Amino acid sequence: MPTPDLTSRILRRLLASGLTTRAERLLARVRAADVGPLLASLEPEEIRTVVDLLFQQRRAAETLSELPPDIFRQVVDAVSDERLAEVLSRLEVDDAVHLVGELPEERRSEVVALLPEERRGDLRQAELYAESSAGRVMTTDFVALDAKMTAQEAIDHVRQRGGGGGETDAILYLYVIDDDARLLGVVPIRRLVTSPPDRRCAELMIRNPIRVAVDTDQEEVARLVAKYNLLAVPVVDDAGKMAGVITVDDVIDVIHEEATEDIYHLAGLSEDDRVTSPARRSIRKRLPWMMVNLVTAFLASWVVGLFERTIEEIVALAVFLPIVAGMGGNGATQTLTVITRGIALGEIEFSSGLRAVAREVGVGVAIGLLTGLAAAGVAWIWQGTPWMGIVLLLAMVANLAIAGLVGAAVPLVLKALGQDPALGSGVIVTTFTDCCGFFAFLGIATLLMDRL
Amino acid sequence: MPTPDLTSRILRRLLASGLTTRAERLLARVRAADVGPLLASLEPEEIRTVVDLLFQQRRAAETLSELPPDIFRQVVDAVSDERLAEVLSRLEVDDAVHLVGELPEERRSEVVALLPEERRGDLRQAELYAESSAGRVMTTDFVALDAKMTAQEAIDHVRQRGGGGGETDAILYLYVIDDDARLLGVVPIRRLVTSPPDRRCAELMIRNPIRVAVDTDQEEVARLVAKYNLLAVPVVDDAGKMAGVITVDDVIDVIHEEATEDIYHLAGLSEDDRVTSPARRSIRKRLPWMMVNLVTAFLASWVVGLFERTIEEIVALAVFLPIVAGMGGNGATQTLTVITRGIALGEIEFSSGLRAVAREVGVGVAIGLLTGLAAAGVAWIWQGTPWMGIVLLLAMVANLAIAGLVGAAVPLVLKALGQDPALGSGVIVTTFTDCCGFFAFLGIATLLMDRL
Repeated sequence: MPTPDLTSRILRRLLASGLTTRAERLLARVRAADVGPLLASLEPEEIRTVVDLLFQQRRAAETLSELPPDIFRQVVDAVSDERLAEVLSRLEVDDAVHLVGELPEERRSEVVALLPEERRGDLRQAELYAESSAGRVMTTDFVALDAKMTAQEAIDHVRQRGGGGGETDAILYLYVIDDDARLLGVVPIRRLVTSPPDRRCAELMIRNPIRVAVDTDQEEVARLVAKYNLLAVPVVDDAGKMAGVITVDDVIDVIHEEATEDIYHLAGLSEDDRVTSPARRSIRKRLPWMMVNLVTAFLASWVVGLFERTIEEIVALAVFLPIVAGMGGNGATQTLTVITRGIALGEIEFSSGLRAVAREVGVGVAIGLLTGLAAAGVAWIWQGTPWMGIVLLLAMVANLAIAGLVGAAVPLVLKALGQDPALGSGVIVTTFTDCCGFFAFLGIATLLMDRL
Repeated sequence: MPTPDLTSRILRRLLASGLTTRAERLLARVRAADVGPLLASLEPEEIRTVVDLLFQQRRAAETLSELPPDIFRQVVDAVSDERLAEVLSRLEVDDAVHLVGELPEERRSEVVALLPEERRGDLRQAELYAESSAGRVMTTDFVALDAKMTAQEAIDHVRQRGGGGGETDAILYLYVIDDDARLLGVVPIRRLVTSPPDRRCAELMIRNPIRVAVDTDQEEVARLVAKYNLLAVPVVDDAGKMAGVITVDDVIDVIHEEATEDIYHLAGLSEDDRVTSPARRSIRKRLPWMMVNLVTAFLASWVVGLFERTIEEIVALAVFLPIVAGMGGNGATQTLTVITRGIALGEIEFSSGLRAVAREVGVGVAIGLLTGLAAAGVAWIWQGTPWMGIVLLLAMVANLAIAGLVGAAVPLVLKALGQDPALGSGVIVTTFTDCCGFFAFLGIATLLMDRL
């Protein structure tokens, strides 16, 4: 396969020369996930032709559902409502719901109106489940078995249902249900293959399999799948009836999303602020956070202002402010990162929250002492008096203790309140370390003013 | 199932009363991944008994390989070399290599010496592959088929190999190889089930499947698996011979590790600094980074020192230093996060590096202007002169432009140099914004001194 860049150049030349059949043949060799970068490099007119070719190859649905949001929007602009409806009716329900959400609002109802009634019903059903719940992510396309079936009957059943190939190659487990559709057990497809044909499903199945409820949060589902090394997890409704299945490939997307969310929230970013998004959107999304940050920066600034008289006496104090703020901020970020990641990966269950806070305060004091001594030594040499160093040392120990305390406590408290532990903790914690650090440093300096 | 806490309490009481059979029955109902938190709550003596019970249930290998590193170390301290060797000889090679790496150095050679010769060979073989390469993560336990086999013969082959159950329930794909063991294609196990028994594997297989080389980095493997929604990916050696398979559950671990690594590196943390690790280790691991940070903080401090005379004249300048530093640091962190995450998720391939840098500078200037105007207004009211606000505005625009430039360029350059884009970028970038921000703010103030 040529490189993506080369493929794109060849494709554009073929399209420009009207060599559609050759373009089609080239396209047939590009895997679905690689079509995205390819489309990103094309003009709207070319995109329309390529999408038509994908329709001819019956690959449009699979391909378009794989596109990153920003490329998808470009493609949508180049494609008619009818084409989009065709895509939506071919996808699995979970992917279709997701794509409907990505459509521009003004076209959404037109496109949905073009769908067959049955599909519209599926979408309405799926939209009953909360955003990012298991019900939204699951596929309702699974194979159910009766406990009394034999292995051979089950195989025949799978063969009948199978049909299309493609998607169903991914079937890993079959689900044994009772007369009320309640989940009884799971049969790995390999067991069917290797069991005597007359063995009953009731004997083959794994009883009491791990399952999730339709309203379980997708993050929790991802955690279970990762923890128990599952390839798919059944989803049941309130009555214990089998409602759908979440497969591991959807879980990987969730894990990526959640990791991005954690990293982004620590920096005060919103998830749809990406390298590929328009600069306008980034400005709009980052501005509120930067304004909040400005307010808290003025708070720190106000604390410094309280000591303007002391600074007037000893201007050298202004020189050391960046050290107090920088070390406190870094210490707080480290603690915050360890704690939010520990919460996200479920490690905090191994250790109680209070113990974690105590631990971080201890680490903060130790690091404050060690770096504070180094800083004090440099300050002594630089300023020619040991007292400036002593003030710096005391302020750094206090500030790093506060960094450990607040950096650990804030995400744990946010979590206890049912909030996202990462969201906003950064700004809260650094406001604390800035204000407390400046207060400690300038306050101690004011007390020891005669010595400085 | 009772809650983990309750299970732990019941288990401890049963052990204390010597009711081993009942303890064993309780333990049999705990899933492998749940044994970790349970062990964490026990005393060394109790751990030893529980590990013995796990051995009796033939679950020790599976269970111990699932333990988080810190609990594993506690368990290792409580268990004899012979027991550990038994565990290592029962695990899949990739898990065994991993556990050997986790053993305390002083016991490693003793434990390895107790292994059967064949297993020692496996380990030596696996250790030839670079750390975090596909060769290290893969399992060598896969089912190979001959292209001439029929579907029925392939099923018989799987049935013969299957044996134990457990692990092999996870077989998803069978690998068709030629006489030189070179990979020809992949047969999803479901296709075997639903095909006519006399169909040849050569017709059933998916040709030219996605594969990775033994020296491919595990991060790259994870990216391929996520991108193409694979459940397992074959690993081939330099000659194209089938060497092993990486399954999606290992990939999920890699994704978690890589996400943690990204988040941690941005904060200057090392991966083994967890909520559960001893405080001593956290201090030792964080100290070097904090010392580097201290040096860069002194650099910023030195820049402020250059303008001591200006500050002596206008002490209010010291009051605004936290605003310049805080806004620049936050802007830089946002850009840095978007770019490193974009690199990690492969989004940067949709947009060239240079375009990303230009975009971030533009966003920085826009946000600098908007927040700078707000800050200037507040400063005007506070200080009673518009000039302080003008200096602040100019400094903030300059500093946020630099934040965009450096925040985007540093990780891209690190990546181009083959380094981890996240590692160290935080400290480099905030050093730039601190120093440049202070220089701009105090420099402009010095030029406009007469007005202030």
